[in-house]
Amino acid sequence: MGNRVTEFNEFRARMNERILGEDHRVIKRFFGIDTLTYEPGALDAKTKEMLGLVASMVLRCDDCISYHIIQCKEAGVSDMELFDIFSIALVVGGSIVIPHLRRGVAFLDDWNVQHHP
Amino acid sequence: MGNRVTEFNEFRARMNERILGEDHRVIKRFFGIDTLTYEPGALDAKTKEMLGLVASMVLRCDDCISYHIIQCKEAGVSDMELFDIFSIALVVGGSIVIPHLRRGVAFLDDWNVQHHP
Amino acid sequence: MGNRVTEFNEFRARMNERILGEDHRVIKRFFGIDTLTYEPGALDAKTKEMLGLVASMVLRCDDCISYHIIQCKEAGVSDMELFDIFSIALVVGGSIVIPHLRRGVAFLDDWNVQHHP
Amino acid sequence: MGNRVTEFNEFRARMNERILGEDHRVIKRFFGIDTLTYEPGALDAKTKEMLGLVASMVLRCDDCISYHIIQCKEAGVSDMELFDIFSIALVVGGSIVIPHLRRGVAFLDDWNVQHHP
Amino acid sequence: MGNRVTEFNEFRARMNERILGEDHRVIKRFFGIDTLTYEPGALDAKTKEMLGLVASMVLRCDDCISYHIIQCKEAGVSDMELFDIFSIALVVGGSIVIPHLRRGVAFLDDWNVQHHP
Amino acid sequence: MGNRVTEFNEFRARMNERILGEDHRVIKRFFGIDTLTYEPGALDAKTKEMLGLVASMVLRCDDCISYHIIQCKEAGVSDMELFDIFSIALVVGGSIVIPHLRRGVAFLDDWNVQHHP
Repeated sequence: MGNRVTEFNEFRARMNERILGEDHRVIKRFFGIDTLTYEPGALDAKTKEMLGLVASMVLRCDDCISYHIIQCKEAGVSDMELFDIFSIALVVGGSIVIPHLRRGVAFLDDWNVQHHP
Repeated sequence: MGNRVTEFNEFRARMNERILGEDHRVIKRFFGIDTLTYEPGALDAKTKEMLGLVASMVLRCDDCISYHIIQCKEAGVSDMELFDIFSIALVVGGSIVIPHLRRGVAFLDDWNVQHHP
Repeated sequence: MGNRVTEFNEFRARMNERILGEDHRVIKRFFGIDTLTYEPGALDAKTKEMLGLVASMVLRCDDCISYHIIQCKEAGVSDMELFDIFSIALVVGGSIVIPHLRRGVAFLDDWNVQHHP
Repeated sequence: MGNRVTEFNEFRARMNERILGEDHRVIKRFFGIDTLTYEPGALDAKTKEMLGLVASMVLRCDDCISYHIIQCKEAGVSDMELFDIFSIALVVGGSIVIPHLRRGVAFLDDWNVQHHP
Repeated sequence: MGNRVTEFNEFRARMNERILGEDHRVIKRFFGIDTLTYEPGALDAKTKEMLGLVASMVLRCDDCISYHIIQCKEAGVSDMELFDIFSIALVVGGSIVIPHLRRGVAFLDDWNVQHHP
Repeated sequence: MGNRVTEFNEFRARMNERILGEDHRVIKRFFGIDTLTYEPGALDAKTKEMLGLVASMVLRCDDCISYHIIQCKEAGVSDMELFDIFSIALVVGGSIVIPHLRRGVAFLDDWNVQHHP
């Protein structure tokens, strides 16, 4: 049903608002840069999102993986391309990445169900 | 309601008792040193807890972050000081720290509700 | 009750099937090597599983720890030997390992209840 | 002068030969998969090398960064594109990446001197 | 003799100039935030540098450790306070931190010789 | 010639003496536990050294790898057994481990030359 996707987005949005509401100069600027990073530059937005995904995966952060899977899908990355990204993360990062791969694929499947019901 | 704080403390206390009950010499001594580390020395206890928090945050361990947030609050660290610590963790550790920041702030809010109802 | 063990095994089996069903050459070969790694060679299977457990623990991956605890128990590693492995992971990896130790011991206790009811 | 590039390549080639000469089944297969990973699939070789570079950078491995900079340059990645990759690694991985960025850029400059004298 | 300190500072300054000269918007802003992070806020500059040091140490980055040791010394952190910071990094990060502790102390000794000849 | 082994041992011994000479209670106790960890318990010393090696390798610490290679060799671990350990580290930790594998094997070769001239 894709509840995982909805829950993830809601908690993320609520806490980002809470954190930015604190009005901490460094944290606010960091969030600003974080957004700027994925805007088209020498590389297009799709490539940048793929780079963000593989980086999140080898660093083994489930929420970051979920976030970048959403961004990749919205930027037009196909499931076959996603599995190529997963394979690079797996080989670079090792079998320790596998549990995150399982949860990432489960999240992707939820996203696909939610968007192509 | 701060249930998150209560649940965290209960699981932590129960499992620590279980582990120490095994009476494994190295593990017991390690737990002893872990306590000793945060006692006042050249640096006072408050500073040491802040150091423990930032270390936990860049290493991205939610339970360690929760634990050191409790210790910091009990040592008199203000919320504004906590956000300074969070900002250092964020800049040193990068955007991969953000999901842990979200959960850390949610935990802090629960702690504050529980202690100032 | 050991539900934790059953749930872990079910999600793991289901997602492995899903991932391998994608028929991605690199990912399939990686899963193949992962299995091959723990087969007896110069070192026997029991020693290899212990090596897999300590590696998972210092890299702080709960699912990998759960998996290798199961494999170790099935290879005949005693609980006292497991605590020796835990102690090495703790000293090499530091106090940041403690929350994973707590969950690992809770998982071990569930496994033991399930297999010696 | 680009000696850094030559020295890196020589040590890498010599030790790979030494390691593969041991004829260890798992290690040989892993090296085989490692090569296979970057061959064109759903994603082209250039994109895959960029993914390998950003993964190496957030994991902070100087030799892996050097290797993937070479691969990227040979696959036609421009310096401006490399700096986009560096920026993503920096924001995802944090200021802890900066020393690796410095050494990576120094390596890139050596490579450029060696190839456009 | 403190050559280590001089060499470190020279390479750092030269490469920072090289990188900032590239005029990459995200990288420049990140370097700007990195500086801003350690300016006095709710916490004073000395405390912030100590937080930066312990974070660098558990993340095991020699150059970052060297840099923050310099910053700490210039902010008035005593050697006894530094060893308290080292002890927290050691207990949180484990024995894997020891080689970085050795190099950090060697760097500190060089700094002290250079500044109190 | 094995100079690498001699240099490693000399720097290690000199800095350990320097650090312990500081007489910091937590650091001294940590070093004491670190020694205690590898003494025979439920597991024998040889197995414990192998566990220490694989942990060092997936955490990618060259000095720790060098140290545990020495300890393994002195505990009677054969080169074939070492390559089994290396293979587990490689598969668990991924291709990011390869540069450390290269340096580890180069160190092992130096050790072997020094001890069987």
